[in-house]
Amino acid sequence: MDVTLDDLARLVGGTVKGDGRTVIRAVNGIREAGPGEITFLANVKYAPLLATTKASAVVLADGTPAPIPTLSVRNPDLAFGKVAEHLGGGAWRPPPGVHPSAVVSPGATVGKNVSIGAGTVVEDGASLGDNAVLYPQVYVGREAVLGAGVLIYPQVVIRERCRVGARVIVHSGTVIGSDGFGYATEGGVHHKIPQVGIVVVEDDVELGANVTVDRARFGRTVIGRGSKIDNLVQIGHNVVLGQGCLLVAQAGVAGSTKVGNYVVMAGQAGLIGHLDVGDQAIITAQTGVTKDVPAKGVMSGSPAQDRRTHLKELASLSKLPEALQEIRRLRREVDELRKKAKG
Amino acid sequence: MDVTLDDLARLVGGTVKGDGRTVIRAVNGIREAGPGEITFLANVKYAPLLATTKASAVVLADGTPAPIPTLSVRNPDLAFGKVAEHLGGGAWRPPPGVHPSAVVSPGATVGKNVSIGAGTVVEDGASLGDNAVLYPQVYVGREAVLGAGVLIYPQVVIRERCRVGARVIVHSGTVIGSDGFGYATEGGVHHKIPQVGIVVVEDDVELGANVTVDRARFGRTVIGRGSKIDNLVQIGHNVVLGQGCLLVAQAGVAGSTKVGNYVVMAGQAGLIGHLDVGDQAIITAQTGVTKDVPAKGVMSGSPAQDRRTHLKELASLSKLPEALQEIRRLRREVDELRKKAKG
Amino acid sequence: MDVTLDDLARLVGGTVKGDGRTVIRAVNGIREAGPGEITFLANVKYAPLLATTKASAVVLADGTPAPIPTLSVRNPDLAFGKVAEHLGGGAWRPPPGVHPSAVVSPGATVGKNVSIGAGTVVEDGASLGDNAVLYPQVYVGREAVLGAGVLIYPQVVIRERCRVGARVIVHSGTVIGSDGFGYATEGGVHHKIPQVGIVVVEDDVELGANVTVDRARFGRTVIGRGSKIDNLVQIGHNVVLGQGCLLVAQAGVAGSTKVGNYVVMAGQAGLIGHLDVGDQAIITAQTGVTKDVPAKGVMSGSPAQDRRTHLKELASLSKLPEALQEIRRLRREVDELRKKAKG
Repeated sequence: MDVTLDDLARLVGGTVKGDGRTVIRAVNGIREAGPGEITFLANVKYAPLLATTKASAVVLADGTPAPIPTLSVRNPDLAFGKVAEHLGGGAWRPPPGVHPSAVVSPGATVGKNVSIGAGTVVEDGASLGDNAVLYPQVYVGREAVLGAGVLIYPQVVIRERCRVGARVIVHSGTVIGSDGFGYATEGGVHHKIPQVGIVVVEDDVELGANVTVDRARFGRTVIGRGSKIDNLVQIGHNVVLGQGCLLVAQAGVAGSTKVGNYVVMAGQAGLIGHLDVGDQAIITAQTGVTKDVPAKGVMSGSPAQDRRTHLKELASLSKLPEALQEIRRLRREVDELRKKAKG
Repeated sequence: MDVTLDDLARLVGGTVKGDGRTVIRAVNGIREAGPGEITFLANVKYAPLLATTKASAVVLADGTPAPIPTLSVRNPDLAFGKVAEHLGGGAWRPPPGVHPSAVVSPGATVGKNVSIGAGTVVEDGASLGDNAVLYPQVYVGREAVLGAGVLIYPQVVIRERCRVGARVIVHSGTVIGSDGFGYATEGGVHHKIPQVGIVVVEDDVELGANVTVDRARFGRTVIGRGSKIDNLVQIGHNVVLGQGCLLVAQAGVAGSTKVGNYVVMAGQAGLIGHLDVGDQAIITAQTGVTKDVPAKGVMSGSPAQDRRTHLKELASLSKLPEALQEIRRLRREVDELRKKAKG
Repeated sequence: MDVTLDDLARLVGGTVKGDGRTVIRAVNGIREAGPGEITFLANVKYAPLLATTKASAVVLADGTPAPIPTLSVRNPDLAFGKVAEHLGGGAWRPPPGVHPSAVVSPGATVGKNVSIGAGTVVEDGASLGDNAVLYPQVYVGREAVLGAGVLIYPQVVIRERCRVGARVIVHSGTVIGSDGFGYATEGGVHHKIPQVGIVVVEDDVELGANVTVDRARFGRTVIGRGSKIDNLVQIGHNVVLGQGCLLVAQAGVAGSTKVGNYVVMAGQAGLIGHLDVGDQAIITAQTGVTKDVPAKGVMSGSPAQDRRTHLKELASLSKLPEALQEIRRLRREVDELRKKAKG
């Protein structure tokens, strides 16, 4: 698909510097791009690459100079995303219809324009909203409800009675609605506690690959509207995650913890169970949170502390080897002074 | 299903306080429950909710007072589990029989009353015990042996020759018997070391979602009887895990480590390879164990230490920034004293 | 298969001590082996077991003495691997051909002698090299390219356009080519940034179970030739991993980080995004790297430091509780000395 830089400026609401008639066929990274391709720059770390890129044009933040035709916008990441989608680089989606090898219960409700791929299983009483896309080899359990426009990649499991909102994207290998980890131990035997609740994934959520979200013991485990969850994240039973949260790969949230809106958990961070984490809190990478976190709190370390306190302790720790020597020197000198004072 | 509180007392062996004729239809959480539902309280943190719950009755530990009809028991968690199961809140299970789209080798042995779901594959020489339930899209490898009453959720892989005991539950996405991580490096090439052993999962184990258990290099990787393993846990080759262990989400055990009975590993904790961990040891969250652990040892930190030592160090670290200032003050004062002493 | 110790010596290029006519049927571990089996010893920790093993022979490093017939070699791990493979202990592989329940697009290209298992889906435009083995329930996306001799275990997902090199082994539950985690946030909404790149897995790589490798935003995420990746590892979008790396279970590499050749990441270690990690660097278990790492650097701790610095700090921290007491003693003594000096 060929468009001009002027066309793209109209699409994303930016302004052109240089030749607006430059023809663009595709998007590409600043290192990889060649003639006919548009690239972008969001991270200043890569600014020197503007001098050497072979791209025909670049998407840049307003005011940033560049030696090639430029589409100048407020948010380059966002604008470039729209450009990429317009130029057709998005993922291929299976065509509407039910593949003959899929197994869809006659008791399931299937909306309009739905795609159901090869080997996908939809159990009795399940419901698929309009324009839902289920790739091959997906499992949708009894009475599960999937909203309009969901995009479910191959080999996802959505267990019975769970609810997945509109436009939710779920990547391969992810399991929604596995049993929570709960046992009542008596006489050395761990008796399984039935997990009779469900998972509710609200609208516009995206779940990465090989994520696990356990169903509630009773009631609901909730992933709030517009939250985005990266690969290999664990969400325990009865967790309630707010809206717009970002959970980076391999983070984990233990059972019954409540997480506010727009909370960020970096990679490999963990929250123990039964906590309250306030809105807009930030949990840095590998941090292990064991206490409630106030709104806008920034936590680091394992066990976690307020980030400032943590950095202060780290800084002082780096001075400790020298401080121990100083203590030994002080000891010698004080001993000498005491000897003299007595003498 | 409608029962009275008196009926439930007979079922779980508790005593009723208040109206035993209260009719109960379902279980629910203390916040979510309404009329006709019974709830419970195991964590004192939520005791204030007893005043506001709309539940018709509550399961409580002996001696705890409550303003609503109460089923008083020794172990509320355990009793409530039995009540939930009695009231029919358990997961739906596929009916006995082989789905026409399943691929079961004629050389496989299938017990009585077995369910094999759509798209499930059972290879030659595999054996399924009586009452085994295999959901859709499961893979059972050649000569794998599954015991009576196993419950295997969708998209589980059990590789060739592995053995899974009676009543074992395996959640979706879990892989039993993948190759251990072993290479012999020569001339800059990592040559694969064949992993010719198996995995033995003993009776009454439960494995969460997206767990990985590697087969032994030779001999067996063992998950001991009644152990419970949460989501996204890694068990390396030749690990021997004792009975009744609890491994919380995202924990990992490296190759050839031996773990005793009733060991608890909290979330994101790790054990390096070739260790011995004694019975009833507790490894706290995110702890990284690099040395043998004695029986009943409690380990924290990365690298791990005895928990008391670790807490002492953490406490002293919190005093370090102030201590460094005190050292500087002492230095000034000692220098002054020395000047005077010389003067 | 029966062979003599002399036969095995010719196979692996070692020398025999003791009776070369000893008949060997199978390999086994030093504890498990019995008559007719050959075992080996690579870790000196287990040397005492040589006195009690029931094996008929043992593979040992040159110069190590043993009380039973011995195959003496330079690299016991490597030699034993060859012996195990020769004796036929390797995994069973499905026979060539396409299972009738597999769904292979007429637009896919299938090489010679390929095995495609039950329920496996190969989309339009995909290409499978000669001797490729796809177990049951695998998904190969549109225009994905798999090299000769690949071995893909059940329930692997390879998304559209990704490329997997010759002889690559991928274990169950692994996802290659899921979308990278990228959003442009505006007005409280996280807009998805299209991920239009691919994943390139070079020749002779092995990926463990439940691994996730995200496709690039544009360009390529690369797993370099001969690298070996353990279970549950996360590789973010646009990561470039060099040759011969070893990434142990549950490690994670965030987006756009470049990792050199022969880098080792131990279990549960993490690298944040946009880093450069030099050749032959070693990242110890649970370490969290937040800065570039020089070639041959050894990093520990979270946040990571040079290992020597880290160990020095840990050693000094262990002395801190006592040092705090010493500081209090010094304070008392200095106060006394000052009182006397003034008096």
